[in-house]
Amino acid sequence: MKNKSTNLRVRLPALIFALEVMIVVLYAFFVTYEDDANALLQNNQTRPMENSLYQNYPFFADIQVMIFLGFGCLLAFFRHYGFGGMAFNFLIATFTIQWAILVQGFFQFYYDGKIHLGVLNLINAEFACAVVLISFGAVLGKTSPVQLLIMALLEIPVFGVTEWAVVKYLKINDAGGSILIHIFACYFGLGVTFVLYRPSLNEGHPKESTSYQSDLLSVMGTLFLWVFWPSFNSALTFKGDDQHRAILHTFIGLSASTITAFALSSMLSKNGKISMADVQNVTLAGGVTVGASVDMMISPAAAYVLGILGCIACMLGYKYLSPFLARRLRLQDQCGIHNLHGLTGLISSLAGICAILLATEETYGPSLYQTFSHRAPPEGDPLLAELQELIPDLEAGLGRTAREQALFQVAAVFGTIAVAAVGGLLTGVVLKLPYLASPSDEICFDDELFFNVPPDYSCVNDPQDVWSCVLRDTNKTDAD
Amino acid sequence: MKNKSTNLRVRLPALIFALEVMIVVLYAFFVTYEDDANALLQNNQTRPMENSLYQNYPFFADIQVMIFLGFGCLLAFFRHYGFGGMAFNFLIATFTIQWAILVQGFFQFYYDGKIHLGVLNLINAEFACAVVLISFGAVLGKTSPVQLLIMALLEIPVFGVTEWAVVKYLKINDAGGSILIHIFACYFGLGVTFVLYRPSLNEGHPKESTSYQSDLLSVMGTLFLWVFWPSFNSALTFKGDDQHRAILHTFIGLSASTITAFALSSMLSKNGKISMADVQNVTLAGGVTVGASVDMMISPAAAYVLGILGCIACMLGYKYLSPFLARRLRLQDQCGIHNLHGLTGLISSLAGICAILLATEETYGPSLYQTFSHRAPPEGDPLLAELQELIPDLEAGLGRTAREQALFQVAAVFGTIAVAAVGGLLTGVVLKLPYLASPSDEICFDDELFFNVPPDYSCVNDPQDVWSCVLRDTNKTDAD
Amino acid sequence: MKNKSTNLRVRLPALIFALEVMIVVLYAFFVTYEDDANALLQNNQTRPMENSLYQNYPFFADIQVMIFLGFGCLLAFFRHYGFGGMAFNFLIATFTIQWAILVQGFFQFYYDGKIHLGVLNLINAEFACAVVLISFGAVLGKTSPVQLLIMALLEIPVFGVTEWAVVKYLKINDAGGSILIHIFACYFGLGVTFVLYRPSLNEGHPKESTSYQSDLLSVMGTLFLWVFWPSFNSALTFKGDDQHRAILHTFIGLSASTITAFALSSMLSKNGKISMADVQNVTLAGGVTVGASVDMMISPAAAYVLGILGCIACMLGYKYLSPFLARRLRLQDQCGIHNLHGLTGLISSLAGICAILLATEETYGPSLYQTFSHRAPPEGDPLLAELQELIPDLEAGLGRTAREQALFQVAAVFGTIAVAAVGGLLTGVVLKLPYLASPSDEICFDDELFFNVPPDYSCVNDPQDVWSCVLRDTNKTDAD
Repeated sequence: MKNKSTNLRVRLPALIFALEVMIVVLYAFFVTYEDDANALLQNNQTRPMENSLYQNYPFFADIQVMIFLGFGCLLAFFRHYGFGGMAFNFLIATFTIQWAILVQGFFQFYYDGKIHLGVLNLINAEFACAVVLISFGAVLGKTSPVQLLIMALLEIPVFGVTEWAVVKYLKINDAGGSILIHIFACYFGLGVTFVLYRPSLNEGHPKESTSYQSDLLSVMGTLFLWVFWPSFNSALTFKGDDQHRAILHTFIGLSASTITAFALSSMLSKNGKISMADVQNVTLAGGVTVGASVDMMISPAAAYVLGILGCIACMLGYKYLSPFLARRLRLQDQCGIHNLHGLTGLISSLAGICAILLATEETYGPSLYQTFSHRAPPEGDPLLAELQELIPDLEAGLGRTAREQALFQVAAVFGTIAVAAVGGLLTGVVLKLPYLASPSDEICFDDELFFNVPPDYSCVNDPQDVWSCVLRDTNKTDAD
Repeated sequence: MKNKSTNLRVRLPALIFALEVMIVVLYAFFVTYEDDANALLQNNQTRPMENSLYQNYPFFADIQVMIFLGFGCLLAFFRHYGFGGMAFNFLIATFTIQWAILVQGFFQFYYDGKIHLGVLNLINAEFACAVVLISFGAVLGKTSPVQLLIMALLEIPVFGVTEWAVVKYLKINDAGGSILIHIFACYFGLGVTFVLYRPSLNEGHPKESTSYQSDLLSVMGTLFLWVFWPSFNSALTFKGDDQHRAILHTFIGLSASTITAFALSSMLSKNGKISMADVQNVTLAGGVTVGASVDMMISPAAAYVLGILGCIACMLGYKYLSPFLARRLRLQDQCGIHNLHGLTGLISSLAGICAILLATEETYGPSLYQTFSHRAPPEGDPLLAELQELIPDLEAGLGRTAREQALFQVAAVFGTIAVAAVGGLLTGVVLKLPYLASPSDEICFDDELFFNVPPDYSCVNDPQDVWSCVLRDTNKTDAD
Repeated sequence: MKNKSTNLRVRLPALIFALEVMIVVLYAFFVTYEDDANALLQNNQTRPMENSLYQNYPFFADIQVMIFLGFGCLLAFFRHYGFGGMAFNFLIATFTIQWAILVQGFFQFYYDGKIHLGVLNLINAEFACAVVLISFGAVLGKTSPVQLLIMALLEIPVFGVTEWAVVKYLKINDAGGSILIHIFACYFGLGVTFVLYRPSLNEGHPKESTSYQSDLLSVMGTLFLWVFWPSFNSALTFKGDDQHRAILHTFIGLSASTITAFALSSMLSKNGKISMADVQNVTLAGGVTVGASVDMMISPAAAYVLGILGCIACMLGYKYLSPFLARRLRLQDQCGIHNLHGLTGLISSLAGICAILLATEETYGPSLYQTFSHRAPPEGDPLLAELQELIPDLEAGLGRTAREQALFQVAAVFGTIAVAAVGGLLTGVVLKLPYLASPSDEICFDDELFFNVPPDYSCVNDPQDVWSCVLRDTNKTDAD
């Protein structure tokens, strides 16, 4: 009878159809094409190959692979929760993007009474999607798809407002999204998992382990993320040298954290052996750590060092902090997002602040006022006209000093953490409502609860079950 | 002895070498480089970065991933037919592209006595390849590689002629290939499988099931297709806003069909559980449904609704129509291509016709005559000159009205279905000829017939066999 | 106790940290940004979208997938060495690229006392990385990560010097890297494996086999390599028609070798069945064979024939030459790199020489002096000025005749083989030093030595072990 309360047959379709009606209605009333996708606005001045599509689509395609294949495979690491990891990732990601198009569209692409949709919004929506997927990592295997959809439904507006406030009012530098994406996602996820605390899982769960094949699949996910991370970190920088640097720094940072992860994994294990969990997660730390300063002139060596530092923090987090958080602070973080996104995000923010404080015209030339656009002189300042002769595209800024900019960065970090944590806690409370098909403790991390599983499900992957399979088969044969 | 008739040792190499000789000879006599790949035609006016390569190659690369990894993994869903799904897909796809370069080249890229080869032909050839791979889905697991090569050999000319007739004479709008690719492939495949009907398979086949790993692999294939489908649907549109819209609509359509598929999958299953077969197939329905109107100004909301409608049709097809077709109409459709490509293709065609009838200058501006190029005024019409001032690149059209264009679309749909079905039936008859290594009923869906399989083949993946493995091993040990 | 000598706990971190210190110091002192990534050098003449990034990054991203996912999955073909194949590939590749940025940077991108880093260096470094990964194939499963890192550490400088000498002094045509990448990597790897000869492995090793899942994973690796190989072979050609041809030829060559591989695989097996090892490796032969002439006007038919020839040589090599080399010449080549990279590389070099000898102004027009840049007239020659009117970008060359160029190609082939083989032999000697954690013969091809493996490791994948698993579980149950 316990299955009754987790039966999706009515709950999931009812929720999805309701969400779809909402989205269709809002799209019909509020979403139109952006100018570069609108046939009506093309004229004899239009040069098709200069459509913004061609600047954005390659980056969008790379991020698509990260979201659907990267996260999908990475989250399929549990031996008996491969379907859940991959398919729920697919479901949540698609819904989140639809929803983020509206929410972010309302804050960022809204004028003349309409949200103007183009590939650029899709990139932004995939960033918002990454936020939800990271938070998902904290509660992987102990939530139903109904709960996950509601989490996405609530997280996106909180994220959208935060993003809008930080970008529009605090005006920070955060090209790779270390603050807005990684830190936000981490503390939101921790908030949710804090409320969804399940004491019994601290004793260990028989299904909470990997198999040989699930480990390999998960590494593939890591590799998809690794390979396209430079596109992620550089998708929204200025075009030209800024984007060029962002790609170089991300590659170098990831590269440094990868070899460090192998070193630490064998060093910190009792028998000197490498753990696949480290290969799957800790290798990626460098991509987050370089994020906040990824488009600045920090030097290749600094990107390398940031990769190493991020990796060390992430690894120590997995080893020592995560068990402590789970036992003492009710923070059961299934995928260790606090290590891979939280600690590294904080390091990245700090590095970004240092890079801002150290940035001078000597290093950047007049481009300083483009990369740090809020340090540009304000409208009307004669200095602005001078600079605009050197850089024709330069827009007026706020005339901030480096130190002022740094303070805004600090404010953004703490503000983001606060909003995310509170948002996560409240979302967690909502997810505890009845009728959301929350799995009971014993059937966490188990595909059988929500999926029709193939006949080999209980036997393969699971040596402990081989004997019972054999017995079952023997009995079956005897009975024939 | 039964294996004798399916032994590939002579048949497969003989066929392949014959095909290779044919292709080398025809390439040597008839294939040269297109102007943008021909060193001789470069001069001091040439701007290397404006080579058509750079407009086409990114889309080609994405479609490559879809063909080889997307289809390859998706078709590997049978528990004991992973090698067959993936490797035969590889074989058939490579041969089909070689052959389509010639056949389509003859119809579309032939002048001065030569086929002019460039990356654009490769994109077209990969579209033709998708046609064959979709048809392959209908007969997966019950055909030999010899039969599959012959199917490709026959299908491509039928497709090439149809494509040429429809594009050149009916001049339809079908940017995503809903009619020419999906409907053609579906009815051709159904024609073939009708002739290859095997009554005994209607009773169910012991190997016709999935395993945990094969389901995961197949979902990866789905994700590769999903992620790059926008490139597929937009590869051959006009550059600029048309391509931009095609990408947006495909993404939105897929996204809508994905969440709908999860809802319907749990709603229509007895226990409320989600089926991986639905996640693998039905999620993709939206990509087909938006196809015929993908570059038009249908609005994002309409693309969303098309995704939902396509998904519903596809899901109901799998649930109710496919079993009926198999039992009553001798249409054993292994992968359900009639649901994913046929029903959705028909919906897409209908939507395309509606979009054509509703298209006005108010919505499109003068671009109307570019997107619907056959509605442009004919050569000599003074209106043409006027329009060409607004859109310099505009070519003369046929001066068709919207209603005329719609009628041609209808003609194209019915014509395509007729030609494809007849072509498929005749191809099926050829595939029934002796000496083509057709597997007998008992060894369908079984890699062991055509592949050297590793030692774990019969044990792993297959709980029913674990006991026999154990016994075999025990006996072996005893015998030692 | 035997495990003591292979315990990585001190060795691996010590080596990696030492390498990291070296790299950070060298990066800090010698590596700066290239002009297109340097904010200081942007001015009002800069057009961001003309940054070299946008010409190079798409190719870089494709090659990233090849290196990390292509090689990674392909090398995971051993039933019990999937972690080793995939994770060591990840480790070695990341370290190699860091190191190659320095070594190649010193030879190719060094001026004003600094190495100037941009995405172009990263492409070059990934080529160098491919060299190391190919060589790794010769010793897969019988080397520790410590040995592999040292191999990379030594191979890159030998490769860097060879590349510099061949490119700067011999000035050869080798766009696809058949000589510099494939031949070098092959003979270096053979040199290493010659010294690391293990007689007992010639008797066969119980773990030296594949499983159903590992075969599928490995085919995925092949498909990643196959799909993006055109980007690899064309990444460093001239832009425009040269790159266009390189893509066409690579695609055609691969396509021809793929269908030939299926034919030969079934023809040369006793029972007419296809081997997955052939699908995984021999299909790729065409990509190497077209390499040295990939940007020339060889005609599509010739690319097709080259694909077939390469495939035949590669297949016969696997069938007959590899066993001979292992038994008689102490060359235990785990992945058969001599077949896939050596024999094909030699054929490719020969084809390149023929293409050079046959190249005339009739076929190429004045572009002849661009594709074969060393045949361009030298500085001061009045012919140069004439040609520069036809091709404004043309640079002065050396006035070589076709025959002279051919001789330099021959010199490059033999020189590369000699340097690579000697370098490999010496590297092998270093790898035999004690304390490098070299696995003993019995635990080759076994993930358990260097990885914490999941509980199903010894049971799943391995029918021979099922019985012992069952017994173990029964005893466990009894003991409870």
